[in-house]
Amino acid sequence: MTAHGQLRLPEIQTPALLIDADVLARNIAEMSAALPGPRLRPHVKAHKCTSLARQQAAAGHASFTCATIRECEGMVAAGLGQDLLLANEVLDARRVGALVAGGARVTLAVDSPQTIGAAAAGGVREVLIDVNVGLPRCGCLPDQAGKVAEAARAAGLEVRGVMGYEGHVVGLVDGDERAGKIRTAMELLVAAHADVGGDLISAGGTGTYALNRWANEIQAGSYALMDTAYGRLGLPFGQALFVLATVVSSSAEWSVADAGLKAFGMDHGNPELDGATVWFCSDEHTTFSPPRLVGEQVRFVPGHIDPTMAYHERAYVFSGEEIVDVWPIDLRGW
Amino acid sequence: MTAHGQLRLPEIQTPALLIDADVLARNIAEMSAALPGPRLRPHVKAHKCTSLARQQAAAGHASFTCATIRECEGMVAAGLGQDLLLANEVLDARRVGALVAGGARVTLAVDSPQTIGAAAAGGVREVLIDVNVGLPRCGCLPDQAGKVAEAARAAGLEVRGVMGYEGHVVGLVDGDERAGKIRTAMELLVAAHADVGGDLISAGGTGTYALNRWANEIQAGSYALMDTAYGRLGLPFGQALFVLATVVSSSAEWSVADAGLKAFGMDHGNPELDGATVWFCSDEHTTFSPPRLVGEQVRFVPGHIDPTMAYHERAYVFSGEEIVDVWPIDLRGW
Repeated sequence: MTAHGQLRLPEIQTPALLIDADVLARNIAEMSAALPGPRLRPHVKAHKCTSLARQQAAAGHASFTCATIRECEGMVAAGLGQDLLLANEVLDARRVGALVAGGARVTLAVDSPQTIGAAAAGGVREVLIDVNVGLPRCGCLPDQAGKVAEAARAAGLEVRGVMGYEGHVVGLVDGDERAGKIRTAMELLVAAHADVGGDLISAGGTGTYALNRWANEIQAGSYALMDTAYGRLGLPFGQALFVLATVVSSSAEWSVADAGLKAFGMDHGNPELDGATVWFCSDEHTTFSPPRLVGEQVRFVPGHIDPTMAYHERAYVFSGEEIVDVWPIDLRGW
Repeated sequence: MTAHGQLRLPEIQTPALLIDADVLARNIAEMSAALPGPRLRPHVKAHKCTSLARQQAAAGHASFTCATIRECEGMVAAGLGQDLLLANEVLDARRVGALVAGGARVTLAVDSPQTIGAAAAGGVREVLIDVNVGLPRCGCLPDQAGKVAEAARAAGLEVRGVMGYEGHVVGLVDGDERAGKIRTAMELLVAAHADVGGDLISAGGTGTYALNRWANEIQAGSYALMDTAYGRLGLPFGQALFVLATVVSSSAEWSVADAGLKAFGMDHGNPELDGATVWFCSDEHTTFSPPRLVGEQVRFVPGHIDPTMAYHERAYVFSGEEIVDVWPIDLRGW
């Protein structure tokens, strides 16, 4: 717990990330009940915060997913390096190898001769074969997974299994469509796993955690804090993350709050504000209507949680009107 | 100059900001020729980098524009606090007052009784009256500016003049439309200035720097580094900023580079890559075609410079294939 004195919400310098401690606790409990222990490998890219990861660990999850080497380094430094999956390809794995040499367990995704070569040269010992299951991104063709695994073993690497992220499915608002498309994607992954071997079939996200019965571990991250995009899917997780802002100017028609393009990930569109219409965001401002009083604090909900967290140095954790903790967003950068 | 040894481009850990030293120097020289000395008040929000601001100062500009208190603090710490304008409203000006008490000159924008009260209470001595000239954001109504100035003077503040940002004009691609709309906006500002008094009429941006003949200082920032949005306006500034990425995965149809939503401000859309079509960005990836070789470095041009800079800790300054400097992006946060 970081020192925070008797800080209360009205005293926070805005813009600032706010985490509702009670909603966060409920979200973590809900997910841990559905996917206990190793069935969930929480993805830290969604929050970039080891203090939050510690809450997930306290709920019984010892294995975590990372998207960057910096996230792995931060998790190891925080004592959470028992079983990390870097679910991403890298061409220079020396920093990962240094973590492994130091006693951490870090498993790296590979999908090509080059990424296998980088893993072996960098001192990585364990890998997963990344399989493309329909999203045009990383991963080998499903019918090539066995050969990639062979090449990895020939390079001296231990192959723990497969991963395949159904990122083209997790955000579909229609639940039936999500259920149908995930079957297609995961049948590809299961077939690849038969060729690869190993214990792990790693996949999934917040949008498919309850539908994915093929993977034996789910890489969900957004469920802990949530955003407006996942909020539309009817999931049993509440909004735990807000961007607190202060109204700095008001006209007869609109108000302007002091959080803007440098406080919100914008790829899913504008943030939302309860009871208001957001007009647009500028670098340090969001214009909305109807107008509020100058000096009033407002709480925006971002469109996309991950790139929102990456803009902020810290989050204020609150319960009611009290700030109960301040968490560094310590996994930012690369 | 930061120590950088003999680092070359292929050795940079990606994703990373790259600044072309030669293009930057030409952009700064071009703008300084058009708007010498105090005619330009460079806006640091566009680059958030005191090392870059120092280059602007070396070109003859001693006054700077900031959007946040942190930017003011960083500029003062870097010895560039001779004449800063915080072109934004704040409800708690104590940190600004502390800079003034320490000997820096910081002029604050005000547009309401509340922001005047905050300025006076916080120890600020000098203000500009922020006037709304058509963008639905901050600023008082033009015909109220005189009264706001009276209230500021009654609160013991020195009123240096007016500011009014024509943000609804700066990005218009049609040059004739920009020229027409800026006249309407600036006639409002000049009329307000007649009611307010003071030496300064501060306005403008990169899109209107050559058209705005009403303001006596221009707050341009993006011209130094540029982005795809301003690149469409036919301005005499070259693209000096790139996001360097590494191709980490390739299929027969596409490649994936390791820079994504946490490396690019996305409100103006996807970044661009010369000779390629960008498909989409994920948190740490950009998918594009046609495919390139795994391991190859690529240079993206972001859609919007300001929120792109705010994601990065440092920028690598290059000339040819050599890294000639590493600049901290030290004005991030609030």
